[in-house]
Amino acid sequence: MFEEKISELSKSTPASFIRAILKTTENADVISFAGGLPNPISFPKEEIQESTNRVIEQYGSRAFQYSLTAGLRELREYIAKHLKETQGMDVTPDEIIVTTGSQQALDLIGKVLINQGDTVIMEEPAYLGAIQAFSQYRPDIKTITLHSDGMDMEKLEETLKNSNAKFIYTVPNFQNPSGLTYSAKKRETLHKLSRQYNCILVEDDPYGDLKFDGKPYGYISKKEFEGSILLGTFSKTVTPGMRIGYMIIRDPELRFRINTAKEAADLHSNVFSQYILWDYLTHNDVQEHILKIRELYRSQCNAMIAAMESAFPESVTFTRPEGGMFIWATLPKGMIALDLFERAREENVVFVPGNPFYVDGRAAGNMRLNYTNCDEKTITEGINRLGSLIRSYGN
Amino acid sequence: MFEEKISELSKSTPASFIRAILKTTENADVISFAGGLPNPISFPKEEIQESTNRVIEQYGSRAFQYSLTAGLRELREYIAKHLKETQGMDVTPDEIIVTTGSQQALDLIGKVLINQGDTVIMEEPAYLGAIQAFSQYRPDIKTITLHSDGMDMEKLEETLKNSNAKFIYTVPNFQNPSGLTYSAKKRETLHKLSRQYNCILVEDDPYGDLKFDGKPYGYISKKEFEGSILLGTFSKTVTPGMRIGYMIIRDPELRFRINTAKEAADLHSNVFSQYILWDYLTHNDVQEHILKIRELYRSQCNAMIAAMESAFPESVTFTRPEGGMFIWATLPKGMIALDLFERAREENVVFVPGNPFYVDGRAAGNMRLNYTNCDEKTITEGINRLGSLIRSYGN
Repeated sequence: MFEEKISELSKSTPASFIRAILKTTENADVISFAGGLPNPISFPKEEIQESTNRVIEQYGSRAFQYSLTAGLRELREYIAKHLKETQGMDVTPDEIIVTTGSQQALDLIGKVLINQGDTVIMEEPAYLGAIQAFSQYRPDIKTITLHSDGMDMEKLEETLKNSNAKFIYTVPNFQNPSGLTYSAKKRETLHKLSRQYNCILVEDDPYGDLKFDGKPYGYISKKEFEGSILLGTFSKTVTPGMRIGYMIIRDPELRFRINTAKEAADLHSNVFSQYILWDYLTHNDVQEHILKIRELYRSQCNAMIAAMESAFPESVTFTRPEGGMFIWATLPKGMIALDLFERAREENVVFVPGNPFYVDGRAAGNMRLNYTNCDEKTITEGINRLGSLIRSYGN
Repeated sequence: MFEEKISELSKSTPASFIRAILKTTENADVISFAGGLPNPISFPKEEIQESTNRVIEQYGSRAFQYSLTAGLRELREYIAKHLKETQGMDVTPDEIIVTTGSQQALDLIGKVLINQGDTVIMEEPAYLGAIQAFSQYRPDIKTITLHSDGMDMEKLEETLKNSNAKFIYTVPNFQNPSGLTYSAKKRETLHKLSRQYNCILVEDDPYGDLKFDGKPYGYISKKEFEGSILLGTFSKTVTPGMRIGYMIIRDPELRFRINTAKEAADLHSNVFSQYILWDYLTHNDVQEHILKIRELYRSQCNAMIAAMESAFPESVTFTRPEGGMFIWATLPKGMIALDLFERAREENVVFVPGNPFYVDGRAAGNMRLNYTNCDEKTITEGINRLGSLIRSYGN
């Protein structure tokens, strides 16, 4: 009845395929490789409970009252200190804005930077939450193929040269959906090209801490770079339920604009949870906690790869991530992931077909497989079922 | 440096005057009538602590994991049941979307309904957070003078007749900033006109429960009305820090659009806090709690009115709210509230000058005075200081 009242912005917003299928697969019998859910055994429940009690006793009303749009000062100080220690980055708390999850950061970036028709550069395939958030504002999205060591840099330079792109969006570590990671050389080139063409670089790093071995990679925008926006989150290392992420924005004008857009979007993020998170981070050995998650996900990833090697035909290729949450598999030519998805759902196993990770939504022969939210036995069982379906596909 | 990259949407977003002055008045010596902060003595801290412990023990991982965009089912069921009991409304949990505070609801409404140049109808004066949220999407805002019993209905009908307005936005109970309340007759007319002209009615009710005497007023959109969007919040009755509000949207297409926009905005609201809030609401006598807040605010409101009657010259007129958080005062002709504000700040007392509540931001001779966040003695002291400044104004 009110269809004619819907705005162009809303009509340009694709509904999330993932959230639609998550709803239909809540059944406990379904083996889900579809979501990007952390393993619940990684949630520090007892420690959060202790922190909550401490926060209510020590900070009382301040945790319940309206608060600053930029976020709890103490949390921003912790983030700045953490970035100094782990990345050698010089960031002040004033350069940080706490967001309601990284998804909000993506929406705010789209809002503040995109006029209809503006060029925006993304990877192909790209994170679908970012495609969704940016698409609302009707940009002309140019996609750059993602190779195993990062974006095609020649194509990127050509695109930067021929367009006045507002920003480049990248997930350099264990990308969603591909699981791929940028090489040191490509990070360097991306930094150089962004500066050279005066293009904002949005570096989204939800998974960087979940590197299976060794120290996390350095941020591309670690070096002084006014045009960088770095996105971080506590969703993968502490809890997604609290929806707490952050943005580091160097340029003061840009920061003011993002802050104002956040005022209009939700005044401020949940400050009760910001206090609890901050207390948790400063009272526990978080590095130790993250190490445990890394070990868990490494085992689960290895279990999935071993199962795929054994159950899938050789014509299926797939990435071997160094960390993060996803494997990206490419089906044999002619096989359509969406078809396979429908058959797999009948066998009570689900994944995300590649389509929503392509800006043009094209029918894709890829699938995104998440390994973080199932135990190893379940992973093997689910992959075996998928393997049988792939082998019998077309019969 | 990146100024030329800022979008038109962002340039159309006024920064909030209130949040700007709140920052500069955090000093404990300042008597603030400026914010719209609940009295911290009203926060049910111990009960929330109990609820948190219960939620972590009983619901564990589910409170920490990603969740549904529409919000925690149990909380939506509580809201539906509560609306049935208190308002006799038939609402299903599926018609409810939990939002990150009411501010997010305002942003989502703007996003999903406004194309540049569309007519939107607001009260004059109007809630500034709504002006801010809607302005982003560059509507043509038509304002209708708010009389002591509600909008000028003749003017409203004329405006509806001459424009294809997308929606009417109203705060019918103890409006922010005016403290005014709609009469039963005007509620009826507003309902009738909205339907007659097929215009969506956005009924924002943050303060309805804070009526000093008797039962809360009935919602305008209580009667079956497809085109209604009702906004509620727990910010004034439980805690604003958790940022939990809700929307009731009858039209399925509109609801789908708002839900998709919320996906893109923050995936879902903090589910840890939704669990805690739901547990709190179902384990405590919330009506008793609200009664205490009403008594507290009634006393504080009476203290402010008594102080104004004694300290202000008769040429200052003001509203006498039946509930809520604000008194709206009109200064003598020629006196500029913004000037008075600057002088008052030097005397360590602040309020919000009327300007930001007018869509055209015109220099206004009004001030919004909040009485909920100071004790009675402080209220009297602050009003006395303001009274001296008003009496000496122009000297």
